Amino acid sequence: MNKGQMLYEGKAKRIYQTNEEGIYWVEYKDDATAFNGAKKGQIANKGFLNNKISALFFQLLKKHGIENHFVQSISENEQLIRKVEIVKVEVVVRNVAAGSLAKRLGLEEGTELPHTIVEFYYKDDALNDPFINDDHISILKLATPEQIVEMKSQALKVNQVLRQFMKELGILLVDFKLEFGIDVEGKILLADEISPDTCRFWDAVTKEKLDKDRFRQDLGGVEEAYQEILKRLEAQM
Amino acid sequence: MNKGQMLYEGKAKRIYQTNEEGIYWVEYKDDATAFNGAKKGQIANKGFLNNKISALFFQLLKKHGIENHFVQSISENEQLIRKVEIVKVEVVVRNVAAGSLAKRLGLEEGTELPHTIVEFYYKDDALNDPFINDDHISILKLATPEQIVEMKSQALKVNQVLRQFMKELGILLVDFKLEFGIDVEGKILLADEISPDTCRFWDAVTKEKLDKDRFRQDLGGVEEAYQEILKRLEAQM
Repeated sequence: MNKGQMLYEGKAKRIYQTNEEGIYWVEYKDDATAFNGAKKGQIANKGFLNNKISALFFQLLKKHGIENHFVQSISENEQLIRKVEIVKVEVVVRNVAAGSLAKRLGLEEGTELPHTIVEFYYKDDALNDPFINDDHISILKLATPEQIVEMKSQALKVNQVLRQFMKELGILLVDFKLEFGIDVEGKILLADEISPDTCRFWDAVTKEKLDKDRFRQDLGGVEEAYQEILKRLEAQM
Repeated sequence: MNKGQMLYEGKAKRIYQTNEEGIYWVEYKDDATAFNGAKKGQIANKGFLNNKISALFFQLLKKHGIENHFVQSISENEQLIRKVEIVKVEVVVRNVAAGSLAKRLGLEEGTELPHTIVEFYYKDDALNDPFINDDHISILKLATPEQIVEMKSQALKVNQVLRQFMKELGILLVDFKLEFGIDVEGKILLADEISPDTCRFWDAVTKEKLDKDRFRQDLGGVEEAYQEILKRLEAQM
């Protein structure tokens, strides 16, 4: 397999073509951004850590019947994925109030929600990834009603698997963001990454934050938090 | 009928009890606010104009089978309404991009939407009436899933009637905000007001704004715009 032309450079990853039809090559970067790029920095070894953590989560989900774009890891900070066209809708699943939800609804951070909720955001940096509803998705032609239902259903399944799994590692899954793509057969496929960049993980006992909020809020110990997530995952898998 | 104790004073109206069971007394004020009260002022004769315009719209909707809280006008700026408990969800219906939608989605003001859309906002001044989705309504217990469906369905019916009616008056119904209440029988009932305070009305030909945006945007001729709406309505009814 050869790494081809770079197709896309995002805030945390670079995507390359390969010489194999239907396969892309991903490189995870150490770059960290927050608040839609307004805050920039680096987290030591993040590329390595998120490449590894994401791979473990995608394998776990696959084992539980949730198909996704992950194919295989090929280096410390690189993995192969199935080619998809990313749907410009970020799907956020929340179990506990934090971040923008706590602010929007005036809930204290840490409040357990009466039930899991799902939110959609328009993946558009220029607009600051605005919160949107099904009607907005429709008029912007970001996804069909069937695709919305499918993404929401898959996101809730991912939550069931990850929440239970993380609980056994002593970690509270507060919320997370997923991205989906349309695969070569036209089907919705879970894509992007699942890592402390895209999830809020709190120690179940101490409520210590073990995710990118440490970077966003200048709490220190960012790399150590990501290392801790990987350590607990590897002990279990 | 006697006016009793004041129950509530909002930005644009005062609500009083009456000596008749199940009936409230509403007084429309000349006070105008925008941006959740950050901008304050008065619009001459607004109480009179909106009391009259609202009454005409509520009667029109009733004629088209859409029940609502309006009972009868009792003075230039007062009307009687059926007692309801207001649902803390503002229902916004949009036909054309304007205001917060244009900003949120990066659409040019005046862009006709591919289809009518509905949005929900949490009626909470302290939180600045945030945009919310069905899941937020559920966890905040603002309405049941059945009530959400009912409000959305009624809002779309209101749009059909008003849009067509206004078109015949040479006015484009850009968008509007509705509020619903729970009546004494526990049913969803259209309430609040329908006026240039709560709708965006544009002259169909010149696209001149004939609504509260004239106040929000300091365009002048605010009272005249409200007068123009009333004049065209009265010519038709």
